[in-house]
Amino acid sequence: MSEAETIGVDLGGTKMLVGVVDAERRVSFESREQSAGQTEKELLTGLERELSEAIATRPEVAAVGLGLPCTIDQRRGVAINAVNLPIRDLPIRDLIGERIGLPVFLDNDASAAALAEHLYGAARGAQNAVMVTVGTGIGGGLILGGRVFRGTNGGGSELGHTVVEFDGHPCQGSCPNRGCLEAVASGTAIAREGRIAAEREPDSVLGTALAEGRAIDGVLVTEAAKSGDEAAVAVFNLIGRKLGAGLTSFANIFEPEVIVVGGGVAAGAGELLIGPAREEVVSKALPPMNRVSVVGAELGGESGMIGAAAMARRELAEQNGEGP
Amino acid sequence: MSEAETIGVDLGGTKMLVGVVDAERRVSFESREQSAGQTEKELLTGLERELSEAIATRPEVAAVGLGLPCTIDQRRGVAINAVNLPIRDLPIRDLIGERIGLPVFLDNDASAAALAEHLYGAARGAQNAVMVTVGTGIGGGLILGGRVFRGTNGGGSELGHTVVEFDGHPCQGSCPNRGCLEAVASGTAIAREGRIAAEREPDSVLGTALAEGRAIDGVLVTEAAKSGDEAAVAVFNLIGRKLGAGLTSFANIFEPEVIVVGGGVAAGAGELLIGPAREEVVSKALPPMNRVSVVGAELGGESGMIGAAAMARRELAEQNGEGP
Repeated sequence: MSEAETIGVDLGGTKMLVGVVDAERRVSFESREQSAGQTEKELLTGLERELSEAIATRPEVAAVGLGLPCTIDQRRGVAINAVNLPIRDLPIRDLIGERIGLPVFLDNDASAAALAEHLYGAARGAQNAVMVTVGTGIGGGLILGGRVFRGTNGGGSELGHTVVEFDGHPCQGSCPNRGCLEAVASGTAIAREGRIAAEREPDSVLGTALAEGRAIDGVLVTEAAKSGDEAAVAVFNLIGRKLGAGLTSFANIFEPEVIVVGGGVAAGAGELLIGPAREEVVSKALPPMNRVSVVGAELGGESGMIGAAAMARRELAEQNGEGP
Repeated sequence: MSEAETIGVDLGGTKMLVGVVDAERRVSFESREQSAGQTEKELLTGLERELSEAIATRPEVAAVGLGLPCTIDQRRGVAINAVNLPIRDLPIRDLIGERIGLPVFLDNDASAAALAEHLYGAARGAQNAVMVTVGTGIGGGLILGGRVFRGTNGGGSELGHTVVEFDGHPCQGSCPNRGCLEAVASGTAIAREGRIAAEREPDSVLGTALAEGRAIDGVLVTEAAKSGDEAAVAVFNLIGRKLGAGLTSFANIFEPEVIVVGGGVAAGAGELLIGPAREEVVSKALPPMNRVSVVGAELGGESGMIGAAAMARRELAEQNGEGP
């Protein structure tokens, strides 16, 4: 496979991370921008600006990999539907490719993260691995038979939109469903449950923060839980068990060697979230699937960006006839 | 691939179906036995008796394929854990192989049914297809990238043990979980909801049947719904929607070309069950997955048996170096 550097982009619901990465996963350039609250046009303009800066810094880069929090049509290069960004049926591969003059390849952001963890991180060597990324939403990536599985046209592996509470809380953004894993176990759900706990228990750290007028978000609930606040720990126990119900389903469906939990919220909360999820899998999955490893991601917040760069390197090699 | 006949066995939670099938899926021998309520030893004795009868009738058969409602270790030939039969860590491949003197191959029963529908039925030509079999329990089979996907050691694709109601109704048999698809949308769940409806609405067909002392089972609820009883139709609408919540998850996870609903209960109820499930997928899955076909199985009650025979023919060919 080519030794050239490629650009990886992790375009999340909150921030955009752009990096230039080589085949040994050395990062020679990195930039970070906000993405929340922007229009489609602003997102494209911001993306083009960051890519131009990366190319100006590393003019030898060979291709761009875009990791998008979307269902994707890989063959046509179209971002079909993003739950947490204003992106619909956008031919982003050709749009960006024409603007910057480099080959562009698309992938789901969590599929890219799964590839990175498979190549360099917690899923190294696994034939079958499941990755969930817990952030504003919940993304999913699948390694099946040693390769990234994306569904028929690249729209699949939307593990965050697995129903765990029938007729439960409405899901986010453009998802028309209720009770999805993303609706009940994402950073958004942690904030929601944190606010409920703060109102119910005014003497807790969460309750005090609420009385002081602070915004009860995922970061604050995490800090409170780490300081030992029982109300906040109870929020993580509940959310972790719900996440674990989804992971139990994935264990029963895929019989994977490892389940990797990544994303910003999981990186911040660590075992506060992953511990109860693991307990749920161990006690509720069918044998032998109840023995699967449930671990945190090793590449932290960079896995989506590193994976998108690696995906672009692979796709470029396949296009050039160098095989997968 | 070999033209020889092979024996296919579909060992379900209620009945055991044994058939001799050729490569054109012509069935030259068939027998049916009860399996419910038997011990492991009685199951093995009954299986050996049926296989001996099949071999006596068609002495040229080349191999046996066992479709079991179990998690499986295919490499070691072990049936690990059946939810609805008393089977635990049973080295059934070698046990049966020694008794009958033919090569024996194992598969999950629903994986076998998925293979049959992929070769000969509703999933013909699909690269990615999901099959659920709705009977006493709910089984699952996956065609991914044109091949049967079974997880790392053959224990996966337990789609019936996907959680759709967190902390919901306890699951069946040996499953330690709650709110699995099998707990809320199987034949057992239809009977349970039918009894609740009969008590709530004494003037309905279901209520009258209950007053007459008849057992409210899946067959009776199906008959009542087909006769137009609103209470029974409402049961199927609820159960169909819950089944549909699971199918929506599978659509979002796999982006399959088709979802096939088989098994005895689905064969009996048809669109009564599949209709509301399809509506749920169309209205709740993410685009483009909401456009997936949701159809009934084409091979009816024989798909597990035909698929087990086809699986044995394939495995034998691979063993003989004829490739997959």
